[in-house]
Amino acid sequence: METWSGQRAPLTGNEVRRLDAYWRAANYLTAGQIYLLDNPLLRRALVPSDIKPRLLGHWGTGPGLNLIYVHLNRAIVRRDLDMIFVTGPGHGGPAIVANTWLEGTYSECYPEVSRDGTGMARLFRQFSFPGGIPSHVAAEIPGSIHEGGELGYSLMHAYGAAFDNPDLVVACVIGDGEAETGPLAGSWLSNVFLNPVRDGAVLPILHLNGYKIANPTVLDRIPPEDLLAMLHGFGYQPYVVDGVDRDHPATGDDSFRVHQELAGVLDRALDDIAAAQRHARESGRADRPRWPMIVLRTPKGWTGPQQVSGQQVEGTFHAHQVPLAGVRGNPAHLAELERWLRGYRPEELFDADGSPVAELTALSPTGARRMSANPTTNGGLLLRDLALPDFREYAVPVPEPGATVVGATWTLGGWIRDVITANPDRFRLFAPDEVASNRLDAAFEVTDRAFVGALRPNDDHLSPTGRVMEVLSEHLCQGWLEGYLLTGRHGIFTSYEAFIHIVDSMFNQHAKWLKVSRQIPWRRPIASLNYLLSSHVWQQDHNGFSHQDPGFIDHVMNKKAEIVRVYLPPDANTLLVTMDHCLRSRHYVNVVVAGKHPSPCWLTMDEAVRHCRDGLGTWHWAGSPGPDEPDVVLACAGDVPTLETLAAADLLRRHLPTLRVRVVNVVDLTRLQPDTEHPHGLPDPDFDRVFTCDKPVIFAYHGYPWLIHRLTYRRSNHQNLHVRGYLEEGTTTTPFDMLMLNNLDRFHLVIDVIDRVPGLADHAGQELRQAMVDARRACREHTRRYGEDSPLVTEWRWLGTSPD
Amino acid sequence: METWSGQRAPLTGNEVRRLDAYWRAANYLTAGQIYLLDNPLLRRALVPSDIKPRLLGHWGTGPGLNLIYVHLNRAIVRRDLDMIFVTGPGHGGPAIVANTWLEGTYSECYPEVSRDGTGMARLFRQFSFPGGIPSHVAAEIPGSIHEGGELGYSLMHAYGAAFDNPDLVVACVIGDGEAETGPLAGSWLSNVFLNPVRDGAVLPILHLNGYKIANPTVLDRIPPEDLLAMLHGFGYQPYVVDGVDRDHPATGDDSFRVHQELAGVLDRALDDIAAAQRHARESGRADRPRWPMIVLRTPKGWTGPQQVSGQQVEGTFHAHQVPLAGVRGNPAHLAELERWLRGYRPEELFDADGSPVAELTALSPTGARRMSANPTTNGGLLLRDLALPDFREYAVPVPEPGATVVGATWTLGGWIRDVITANPDRFRLFAPDEVASNRLDAAFEVTDRAFVGALRPNDDHLSPTGRVMEVLSEHLCQGWLEGYLLTGRHGIFTSYEAFIHIVDSMFNQHAKWLKVSRQIPWRRPIASLNYLLSSHVWQQDHNGFSHQDPGFIDHVMNKKAEIVRVYLPPDANTLLVTMDHCLRSRHYVNVVVAGKHPSPCWLTMDEAVRHCRDGLGTWHWAGSPGPDEPDVVLACAGDVPTLETLAAADLLRRHLPTLRVRVVNVVDLTRLQPDTEHPHGLPDPDFDRVFTCDKPVIFAYHGYPWLIHRLTYRRSNHQNLHVRGYLEEGTTTTPFDMLMLNNLDRFHLVIDVIDRVPGLADHAGQELRQAMVDARRACREHTRRYGEDSPLVTEWRWLGTSPD
Repeated sequence: METWSGQRAPLTGNEVRRLDAYWRAANYLTAGQIYLLDNPLLRRALVPSDIKPRLLGHWGTGPGLNLIYVHLNRAIVRRDLDMIFVTGPGHGGPAIVANTWLEGTYSECYPEVSRDGTGMARLFRQFSFPGGIPSHVAAEIPGSIHEGGELGYSLMHAYGAAFDNPDLVVACVIGDGEAETGPLAGSWLSNVFLNPVRDGAVLPILHLNGYKIANPTVLDRIPPEDLLAMLHGFGYQPYVVDGVDRDHPATGDDSFRVHQELAGVLDRALDDIAAAQRHARESGRADRPRWPMIVLRTPKGWTGPQQVSGQQVEGTFHAHQVPLAGVRGNPAHLAELERWLRGYRPEELFDADGSPVAELTALSPTGARRMSANPTTNGGLLLRDLALPDFREYAVPVPEPGATVVGATWTLGGWIRDVITANPDRFRLFAPDEVASNRLDAAFEVTDRAFVGALRPNDDHLSPTGRVMEVLSEHLCQGWLEGYLLTGRHGIFTSYEAFIHIVDSMFNQHAKWLKVSRQIPWRRPIASLNYLLSSHVWQQDHNGFSHQDPGFIDHVMNKKAEIVRVYLPPDANTLLVTMDHCLRSRHYVNVVVAGKHPSPCWLTMDEAVRHCRDGLGTWHWAGSPGPDEPDVVLACAGDVPTLETLAAADLLRRHLPTLRVRVVNVVDLTRLQPDTEHPHGLPDPDFDRVFTCDKPVIFAYHGYPWLIHRLTYRRSNHQNLHVRGYLEEGTTTTPFDMLMLNNLDRFHLVIDVIDRVPGLADHAGQELRQAMVDARRACREHTRRYGEDSPLVTEWRWLGTSPD
Repeated sequence: METWSGQRAPLTGNEVRRLDAYWRAANYLTAGQIYLLDNPLLRRALVPSDIKPRLLGHWGTGPGLNLIYVHLNRAIVRRDLDMIFVTGPGHGGPAIVANTWLEGTYSECYPEVSRDGTGMARLFRQFSFPGGIPSHVAAEIPGSIHEGGELGYSLMHAYGAAFDNPDLVVACVIGDGEAETGPLAGSWLSNVFLNPVRDGAVLPILHLNGYKIANPTVLDRIPPEDLLAMLHGFGYQPYVVDGVDRDHPATGDDSFRVHQELAGVLDRALDDIAAAQRHARESGRADRPRWPMIVLRTPKGWTGPQQVSGQQVEGTFHAHQVPLAGVRGNPAHLAELERWLRGYRPEELFDADGSPVAELTALSPTGARRMSANPTTNGGLLLRDLALPDFREYAVPVPEPGATVVGATWTLGGWIRDVITANPDRFRLFAPDEVASNRLDAAFEVTDRAFVGALRPNDDHLSPTGRVMEVLSEHLCQGWLEGYLLTGRHGIFTSYEAFIHIVDSMFNQHAKWLKVSRQIPWRRPIASLNYLLSSHVWQQDHNGFSHQDPGFIDHVMNKKAEIVRVYLPPDANTLLVTMDHCLRSRHYVNVVVAGKHPSPCWLTMDEAVRHCRDGLGTWHWAGSPGPDEPDVVLACAGDVPTLETLAAADLLRRHLPTLRVRVVNVVDLTRLQPDTEHPHGLPDPDFDRVFTCDKPVIFAYHGYPWLIHRLTYRRSNHQNLHVRGYLEEGTTTTPFDMLMLNNLDRFHLVIDVIDRVPGLADHAGQELRQAMVDARRACREHTRRYGEDSPLVTEWRWLGTSPD
């Protein structure tokens, strides 16, 4: 257990007093936000109407956050640090707001909340107040890249911010509640992926506050030597500051032990970081240093009420939210609140105008060195467009539809390779060990997988300088990428489709961040979060049922239309066009689903550009010739459904030549929605022109069929829409067998047409129907017998022979 | 680093040779499943047609799993252990299948796959073959409680199985790939919740296989002393067996070092477990012992091909899947495969019939001691119904609708308390520190929160014997509960509604397990997984936007109808009826959403029982009197929408008395689906009777409105259905303001009626419409000014005064 103890006191008595005054000011402002509707400076005695009618917020974590913040400020000023602050205990919103106001940034962003008594009144009133600001560290707070409502992601955001930011130090406070979550527990070893030569530093500060809502925290209760062994095992050098050591008072005398100790370990930690970086950069050797971190133990709700109604509050879970309730109606509580607030001696901290006194403001950094004003935390300010190679040069030649067979992601890989080359400082590819599996391995022609650990002879493209981030954790991929994007860079997250559900909730929070930050004038748009989902539901013959779930699209479509985009490019060229578009877009979540197996290409690059621009359209070459109204529309979205639809259309054209078939492909799923629901939505008249108002539409869709109904239920022709998709029937079997299990195969689509188009009950229709039934049976039997797909379906076109 | 080294060799030479023969047999059977379509015993030279046309499966992890399995068998026999096996590296399906076949269990479950040459041929053929068995450790495999497709959950499943199973030892193999995931990283400290007196033991076996798909693993590459420090910090005593130590050959000579070492550390670990349990049980003191664990390092794909085409395979990531590809068409690979397989000397392992020789079968445990036949792994076999107190005795008296105001979950808490008391050995409540927050704290009248760590004076109901499992990790709550249910017990997971998305993907996998296991004759139904979601989207005025997401229901509804049930009880009595039903149900996932805040009760207990039995129904007392056909249907699902709907109906009845209003409440959401889609679906004629065929339906729904359209799009009256719900508009504000932000408030529902019912364009209708617009504005202004909801809406009935 290494602490600062035993070293020379780093602070003079005067410094301690000034730091402590700043801390008191921040604590006062924190409590004030939770309680006060009026009388912000306590220039008169508190009366009930000064108190908010609904007391909302969390006090418990605030004092610890404020303590850390003021000490970091000291270090920034002393060392001229480029530092940002990630607040894991997100309930500490009022603490961070307090600090941004003290630094002046809050008033710069929100001029009506000026840094004086008038502004302070507004600051207090607006917190957790209708029409005001939310109670967590959120997008509204300058200096934040991290919403603290859902716990678990602080440390991964911190690492994401540090990548490719060599001069940045990311101070990341991790609550001991958050530390119990899986995602946080899995984040510590992110240091295996941080290169001390090219990346910045992360300084984790584990705040042992001791309690959660109603429980103690695990890390506060395991033996301290175990905790330190664990952190050491993660590769860190933990420095401990113990603010609850009962034998050594933390405060209350001139020595202010905790201030001295925290200043000391912070100096030492920052020295360690500087030394590690200097060593790595001078030697050019990117070994993994033993990075420092801090363990800070302080009482929950420190400096708040000791006891309330005989119940110990400070240092217990009772301090989690609002330690004094019913203040408006309880004169004793009101008096206690006033005692508490006056204990910070606001008259020493704020001048006659209510502005912080000069002694305080002199302590904080200035300009962009303020953590609340560091441009890195408003990533859009720093965002530089990617240098994008012309995707047309990667086009697959398509002399006729279906004539070229190639893997879509494999084709895209060449373009991504060159994106990586052209943007060596601001683009990374993130994946849970699936870049090669998703056939994007062209990337490894120019770069490696980032890995700052022991290398061995048989490793494949592994080095500390790699720009591909592979770790077996969807959470880390998502969290790193979010941190990277929020600080002004670009990236793609490629994953197996099924397992992207692992980050459903992280996506939620990022989408909410994007929605809210769009409405904040001073926040600049950031690069979109791009998901490239491959190894999708129809390509899991290797892995089976557990790997088959196309529902992420459904999940995404519940979020705000102005934020989400979903693309299902049907082939390689449309995938190129789509990804180019996604990497140029801003402030969206783009979901792109594309296959990795060799599969026919349908469109030339020119056609692909037009098709993607339109988002959906009729493929005239695939349907019946001539301009007539169709008898049936075969619609499709997704590469595999498109193949089956085209095969079905081919069958119909050959065997029922008088049937007029129209083939419609949808690449941008949101085009299906009304234009009143989504900015990409197709206006009703256009929709009706494509899908008709009264003809049967057989829609072959990549995912759960209900989504298509959900998107189109208000369209004129909805009652004629019949959707085939994934019915949650899966196992380890052949690709075509999977389609048959879910009635999405070409033969079943033909059957659907025959069953739904009036007039096909005649001999020709019924004969073809029976042939389709027989073909399905023959395919099933062939597969069961030989373990592979029947030759009947190895070409996309019908071979013209009888199935038996 | 403590290893067996230095102790007396635990095995005789004969024992080593027999263990090794068993290992060879398991390895042979593992490889055989991946490759062989015929010639299973190699009684003749391999020819191309003996090889499967599609080579699917994962070899790399198999030999390590087989090694562990045979050594555990030795320990079970020696100690008469009650032990089960959790296979974290789930791709190791063929290895576990091989062992279950060797033990005879596989043939008992699947008689056609007999334990002889004929059965072996079937065993090989069916693996990853259409119509056969999946490639992962899945429900189809006897002895499994864990599907290994999605990584991260093995250790939490193991702990869940161990709770309340004092004599059980759960051996849990954790792959070093899986160990990188957040959920697994967060599982290690589950030992803080395991009581050595009443619970069984978990023996984690960290298998350092070294590689994932294409990458090395992090835990294999950090310094070994860091790894041990980390595991020690987690509270374990790690014992190491190093099978890749180049200075000390692991195999190949008579000493078989790895067999000796593994047997030695396994003996020691099991001795440690026995000693810890004896100590705790004799002393009655449930301190947290330093539980043993094993770190086993072996080469990936051990005993497989060393090199293929000059490329090192054994001990590298190239051994992950199928080390020899294209065997059918490549004579060199075919010869190499034959050399490899013959290297196991199958002629020594299987007799003339192809059955394992007696020397092998003598090694494995018998009957229920076989890990593959342990009844704990087929939990339905052991399932005993809960003793359930009569929920009617907890009824809230409802003299008239709305007259009683009480929190629904608070009422339920009393019943749950008594469920806990009545079932001290088979029911637990799981929550991410939210039992008290969700107002279920009556539970603490009879039990505590389980915690096996240091206790302090201000702790609230914390003890090692507690039956409430609280940890700040939704992953752990879900994983522990799954393990608990799969081994034949019961439970409830209560969570904030928004954050249940954290386990979306775990829910997926559990739902898939339930679906598949329903179709397996020898698997018995288990208790349902019950989610009680509270602190829901409409109750997050404290926390704001990050805590507002009702989309879990949408996610759940994508899974198989025979598995999922969703309930939205509108008040306390219906919640009691619903939870009683859920705890009696089997093999479902039940999602129940219910509020925690005091809210009006609508139904007496008798009415609640009838309403829940019907799943939905007309509330005649709330609508216009008389049997006439209505002019409009006000439908609702969810407690808050129900309140608003009833208030809207009250407004309409008072102000437009000639309008015939029908109020319909939906408690079982799946009733909305057609009966062809869901077993609970309402037949069309019944649906039409309730919702009419042609009248406007204004549906106030708890969640995202599109779900209601998705469920009803085929109903006759769908075109007249107008749904209000959560539009992803939220922040920290008052409850009623949240409703207004999303147009779900009573005033807006009245406006919707006026706008959609023909004939309300008259004076009275328009006057009321304007009053509603004014009321909304007045409420908004009051809230913005005073920070609380307007008195206009603090009673559910309209107060009859003008809003201004």
